[in-house]
Amino acid sequence: MDNFDFFSPTEFVFGKGRENEVGKYVRKHGGTKVLIHYGSGSAVKSGLVDRVKASLKSEGIDFIELGGVKPNPRDTLVYTGIDECRSNGVDFILAVGGGSCIDSAKGIACGVPYEGDFWDFYSGKAVVSKALPIGTILTIAAAGSEGSGASVVTQESTMLKRDTGSDLLRPVFSILNPELTCTLPAFQTGCGATDIMAHIFERYFTNTREVEVTDRLCEALLLTMIKETPRVIADPYNYEARANIMWAGTVAHNDIVGVGRSQDWNSHGIEHELSGLYDVAHGAGLAVVMPSWMEFVMSHDVMRFARMATRVFGCQMNFDHPEVTAKEGIYAFRSFLKSIGMPINFESLGAKASDIPTLVHNLGLNGGKTGGFVSLSEEDVASILQIAVDAK
Amino acid sequence: MDNFDFFSPTEFVFGKGRENEVGKYVRKHGGTKVLIHYGSGSAVKSGLVDRVKASLKSEGIDFIELGGVKPNPRDTLVYTGIDECRSNGVDFILAVGGGSCIDSAKGIACGVPYEGDFWDFYSGKAVVSKALPIGTILTIAAAGSEGSGASVVTQESTMLKRDTGSDLLRPVFSILNPELTCTLPAFQTGCGATDIMAHIFERYFTNTREVEVTDRLCEALLLTMIKETPRVIADPYNYEARANIMWAGTVAHNDIVGVGRSQDWNSHGIEHELSGLYDVAHGAGLAVVMPSWMEFVMSHDVMRFARMATRVFGCQMNFDHPEVTAKEGIYAFRSFLKSIGMPINFESLGAKASDIPTLVHNLGLNGGKTGGFVSLSEEDVASILQIAVDAK
Repeated sequence: MDNFDFFSPTEFVFGKGRENEVGKYVRKHGGTKVLIHYGSGSAVKSGLVDRVKASLKSEGIDFIELGGVKPNPRDTLVYTGIDECRSNGVDFILAVGGGSCIDSAKGIACGVPYEGDFWDFYSGKAVVSKALPIGTILTIAAAGSEGSGASVVTQESTMLKRDTGSDLLRPVFSILNPELTCTLPAFQTGCGATDIMAHIFERYFTNTREVEVTDRLCEALLLTMIKETPRVIADPYNYEARANIMWAGTVAHNDIVGVGRSQDWNSHGIEHELSGLYDVAHGAGLAVVMPSWMEFVMSHDVMRFARMATRVFGCQMNFDHPEVTAKEGIYAFRSFLKSIGMPINFESLGAKASDIPTLVHNLGLNGGKTGGFVSLSEEDVASILQIAVDAK
Repeated sequence: MDNFDFFSPTEFVFGKGRENEVGKYVRKHGGTKVLIHYGSGSAVKSGLVDRVKASLKSEGIDFIELGGVKPNPRDTLVYTGIDECRSNGVDFILAVGGGSCIDSAKGIACGVPYEGDFWDFYSGKAVVSKALPIGTILTIAAAGSEGSGASVVTQESTMLKRDTGSDLLRPVFSILNPELTCTLPAFQTGCGATDIMAHIFERYFTNTREVEVTDRLCEALLLTMIKETPRVIADPYNYEARANIMWAGTVAHNDIVGVGRSQDWNSHGIEHELSGLYDVAHGAGLAVVMPSWMEFVMSHDVMRFARMATRVFGCQMNFDHPEVTAKEGIYAFRSFLKSIGMPINFESLGAKASDIPTLVHNLGLNGGKTGGFVSLSEEDVASILQIAVDAK
């Protein structure tokens, strides 16, 4: 196990009706003037934003609003948010929505106290050293942004997706009410589940030896997702299944299951180019990329894939030919994704094989490699995408 | 799943040599005058306390010392610590040791700013509303106190063990270096492992339905303990196994695997009377009490015990007679405890069957019941202890 620091100071407020307590938590964490940040309308239409306002008012907390966050959130709205916060003396950002909304809020939170362009944090030019406190009310179990210090934003002018991270961007509180996720359509529910599973797999495939505790914790979360996701696809108002998925999604990404081990974020990196170019849902892109990546890298550590196959997908171990079991596990994963309504190849995603060179180029490797479980050259990425073209 | 709040703001600093950074972390968390609190000498003899002092000095941080914490830490030393802190203007408590040391430090931390008797927090007369910040350097993987807000202290005059809890008692940082646990004798290592497993089981046996995610996380930690504990008993200097156990011990008790579900702490409660009366190691007492408690309550939820048997101990499920599988799981647990050198009955613990009435009386039920997975009357507790007398 590698040395590590783990710091997850977010206060998680979980369960039915908890969003009605938001005013109390904003006050506790020092907010006096709040930006309520949300998406394209469902949080308003459902009455959620009204309940949030009522709770803030009951605590005497002032607020302004900024809606319009799109999936794959754009830098343009972040700039607007930064201006609004500055001119209104906002001291607390409250994101009401899914991962895109929270990521956009994080962009605003680090941008407000920064003299330069907030994009510097995403382009790698600067490191976050100050940020407004962020609270969240989560409406989609997927991104894990409610418990993480990470944020991904898309630059509108180039459609490039870039990310940043800092403990200063971990929300001070996150309110998780599984009821709020019950109205989510099956496709988005499936995308969220895929994103959660990808966050676990990106940690699971490691070159660090002797990390049984985090291996087992990863497997525990994957087993939960495999049990609960089909239940919510079949029965969207199943509160208990929604609750298990929601907590699994948070634990999957606050890094408690990923500490002390090398990780691999190449499936996420490659997917960002897909959703950047086609504006498809991140989870759908991951469903296409991740099993293809697995096929490509499997030979690097057959026993780890055999472990996944047997412990997570219940395959029989083939002790004579572990690679058979390893492959069965990958196929089982792809079958699972199909069963929850995910696309599993370029065609069903709406991507084009002829764009592979563009996708590879946009990754910005410039002839170099991207590190991880297996270091990937541009040619390797093209091979993975070709597997994703051919997948059935 | 039940509604819950989860807040674990402790900064965990994990790995080889990390104790040498302690000065930096004390400074980060605002400490200027530190009480270094430790046990009966091994932390001094090993040179650990000297390394701690050197690190504090290098940051220009002043300190005083108070050693002498015993296993099952006493109120008498807590009173001394409170006096010392007040007369020296201490603003930060640094525990260097195991759970007893950290629990004693927590008693001091809440006692210093309190005008009344600190024991009020343990006797249930008062609730902690203020405490000095606590940092820890852990030397035994067991109690989980390094990540929890709980503390157990023994009143010297009565030998009664009582506990308190508050988020204010969660350490602001905890340094976990598995190397520091390598010199621990096999018996104490086994006691620590038993305590960790008990913390998981006390959460695992719940009456809350539909808590797959926390069930699976509990099982993940138990499987880790079953794999890694025999390795460190056989090979005390196995860093990797020590590291896995150490992180499992922390995650087992900061409550991330216990949220949203009813818990049962009766085995701990009953054990506290054993270690209170005989001054035996807490983990050894748990090894005697916990499987006996399991036998007594098994019929309350046979399928949960069958789940434990199959998923944790690898028993074959008997679908015709699940109770057979359930019993096999309990026997497997007791066999495991025996294999790691734990006592499993009154005789091997050094307890006397004739003391059962005293032990039951000390629990303070006064003819009432203690709640949990199964509510227990005084007669029930006596039956559990009788099972523990007869266990083989």
